[in-house]
Amino acid sequence: MKDVAQAAGVALKTVSRVVNGESTVAPDTLDRVQQAITELGYRRNEGARQLRQGRSQAIAMVVRDIADPFFAAIGRAVETRAETGELVVMIGSSHDEPAREREVALGFCARRPNALIIAPIAKRQDYLLPEMADGLPVCAVDRPAQGIACDAVLSDNTGGIRAAVDHLAAHGHRRIGYLGDDPAVFTSRERVAGFRAAMAARGLQVNEDEVRLGAPAPTSVGAALRTLLDPSDPVTALITANNRLTVEALRQLDHVEDRPALVAFDDLELGELLRPGLTVVAQDPEAIGNAVMDLLASPHPEPREVRIPVTLIPRGSAEFPP
Amino acid sequence: MKDVAQAAGVALKTVSRVVNGESTVAPDTLDRVQQAITELGYRRNEGARQLRQGRSQAIAMVVRDIADPFFAAIGRAVETRAETGELVVMIGSSHDEPAREREVALGFCARRPNALIIAPIAKRQDYLLPEMADGLPVCAVDRPAQGIACDAVLSDNTGGIRAAVDHLAAHGHRRIGYLGDDPAVFTSRERVAGFRAAMAARGLQVNEDEVRLGAPAPTSVGAALRTLLDPSDPVTALITANNRLTVEALRQLDHVEDRPALVAFDDLELGELLRPGLTVVAQDPEAIGNAVMDLLASPHPEPREVRIPVTLIPRGSAEFPP
Repeated sequence: MKDVAQAAGVALKTVSRVVNGESTVAPDTLDRVQQAITELGYRRNEGARQLRQGRSQAIAMVVRDIADPFFAAIGRAVETRAETGELVVMIGSSHDEPAREREVALGFCARRPNALIIAPIAKRQDYLLPEMADGLPVCAVDRPAQGIACDAVLSDNTGGIRAAVDHLAAHGHRRIGYLGDDPAVFTSRERVAGFRAAMAARGLQVNEDEVRLGAPAPTSVGAALRTLLDPSDPVTALITANNRLTVEALRQLDHVEDRPALVAFDDLELGELLRPGLTVVAQDPEAIGNAVMDLLASPHPEPREVRIPVTLIPRGSAEFPP
Repeated sequence: MKDVAQAAGVALKTVSRVVNGESTVAPDTLDRVQQAITELGYRRNEGARQLRQGRSQAIAMVVRDIADPFFAAIGRAVETRAETGELVVMIGSSHDEPAREREVALGFCARRPNALIIAPIAKRQDYLLPEMADGLPVCAVDRPAQGIACDAVLSDNTGGIRAAVDHLAAHGHRRIGYLGDDPAVFTSRERVAGFRAAMAARGLQVNEDEVRLGAPAPTSVGAALRTLLDPSDPVTALITANNRLTVEALRQLDHVEDRPALVAFDDLELGELLRPGLTVVAQDPEAIGNAVMDLLASPHPEPREVRIPVTLIPRGSAEFPP
C-alpha cells in the first residue's frame, strides 16, 4: 500500500479509502490510485484482515442442494443483499444428510464467516454452540434449528397446505391423497400435520394409506402413486408437498390418462406452461432471503421466527370435479 | 489444541490428525478427541492457516447467475469434487455485467482461494494477471477468458447448433429463425456463427431479419418473435440459443396457435413434460464441472481448451414438417 501511495503521489490514507471503496475520493485521484494498483499488482489480503478483525467478510449458507431451484433462489436474494455490504457468499449442500450438514457447516465456520445461514436437517445443531458463543450470528432458513437459540425464516407451511385442501374441497374433492417428503425434514412434518388439520377442519377423512412420506426418489414416488391411484379405489385429488416430489410425480403421471386433481407446494419454472397448467402453492424465496438478511442485520437477544406468506395460484391442474 | 490433547489424554499430533481428518486414528481415540473438542469448544481457525499456507482452501466461482439452472448444476458438480479435497465453494453472480464480474472476481481473490472458476463476460480478464502471477490457478467455464492464458471448458456450441439446423432441415424446414443472446456473451457469438455456417453448409439462406440477438428480456424476445412469426411471411422453424431465451419464448408462444418447429439449446427441467415435448440440444453441466476440476487438478504450462459434447434430444416440438 505504501508503494501504491508513492506511485500515485497520494497519502497512504487515500489508498486505504480507495481499497475500502469509500466514496470520498476525487475521481482524478481515484483514477491515479487505481492505475498504480494495477501496475504494482497490489491486492488486499483478506487473510490478514480476517485475523485482525476476526471475520472473513463472508456469509456462509448450508442448504439442501445448491442446484435446488428453491434454495438457489434464496441464495440469489442473499447474494444480492450481501454485496451491498461487500460480503461474499459461500454456499454448500447438505443433501439432507445430517453428518454432511455438520461437516459443511463447521467447514464454513473454520473460515470465520460473518454469519451462517442454515437449512437444518440434523436433529440438533448444538455443534454450533462454540461458534455462536464466539459471536457467530446464525439464522435458520426453511426449517428451524434445534438445540441452539437462533432466528428462523420459514414459509407458512400450515396455511399453504390448508389453502390447497380448501381449494380441492371447493371443487368437490373429498378423497385427497398426500405425497410428502422424508419426515426427517421439518417442512415435511409441518406440512403433513397441516394436511391432517385442514382435512379434519373440513370434516374430511384421512385414509392413512393415502398419506405417503418419503424422499423424492423415483421408486418411492412410483410406489406411492400406485397405491394412491389404485384403479379399484383411487383418490380423486393429490397434493405434492415440495418441488422435488412434484417433478418426480409429474414425470410418472405423464402418461396416465385419468389424472387426479393436483396442487403442488412450491412453484416450478415451467409450471404455467404444462397442460393443464400446474396449480401451486408458491413460496417466496426472494422474501425469505431478504427476511434472513434483515434478521442478521438486526441482532436481538431473543430468537425470532418469521413466517413468509405463500400464495395459491390456480392454473388448471386442480380446477375440476372428482 | 494442547488443551484438547490433555483433556483427551493423547499426543498433540493425534489431535492434529483428527482435526485434519486423517484416517489413521483408532475409533476409540477418535471418540475421546472429538468429545474433548466439543467440550472445550476448540475450532480450527482457517484465517491463521491461510496466512501460514497462503490459500483459504476454497474454490471461488463467478457465474452468470447462481440461480440459473445451467450454472447451478455446474456449481453442484464443482462442489461435489471440491469436498473430496476439503475445499469449500464461494459462488457469485456477474449478472453478465463486466464491472460486476471484475468486482466479484477480485472480491473472491482477496479471500485467497485455491482456484478461481469464471464464466467471463468482460472483454478482458487481465485484471486477474497479478493474482495469477501470485499462483492463483484460473479456469474459464462456458466462455473462454481474454487477455490471460488460462484453461477453458466449453460446450460444443458449433456442433450443437449444426445438429439443430440439420434436425430441422431433415424435417423439411428451410426458413429457420434464430433467437440468440446478447452478442457480448461469447456463447451467443459462437452459436450464431455456427448457425450461419450450418445453414450455408445445407445451402439454406439466412435472412438477416430472422437472426435476432439480445438479452433474454420479455420485451426484446417479444419483439423478435413478432418479426419472426409475422403472419405475412413467418419462419417455419425456430432455434432458441439458451435456456433463458427458451423459457421466455415458450411463455410468449404459449397461446400462439400455429407454432414454428422449435429446437432449444440447453435442456429445461420440465422440458419433456410440455406438450409437445421440448426438443433440445442438451449441455452436460456435470461433465463441464468435472472437466474444470480435472484441469485445475493437473496444472500445465500451456492453456488447454476442453470441449464437452452436447446431445440432441427429439421430443416433439421440432419433429413436424413446415
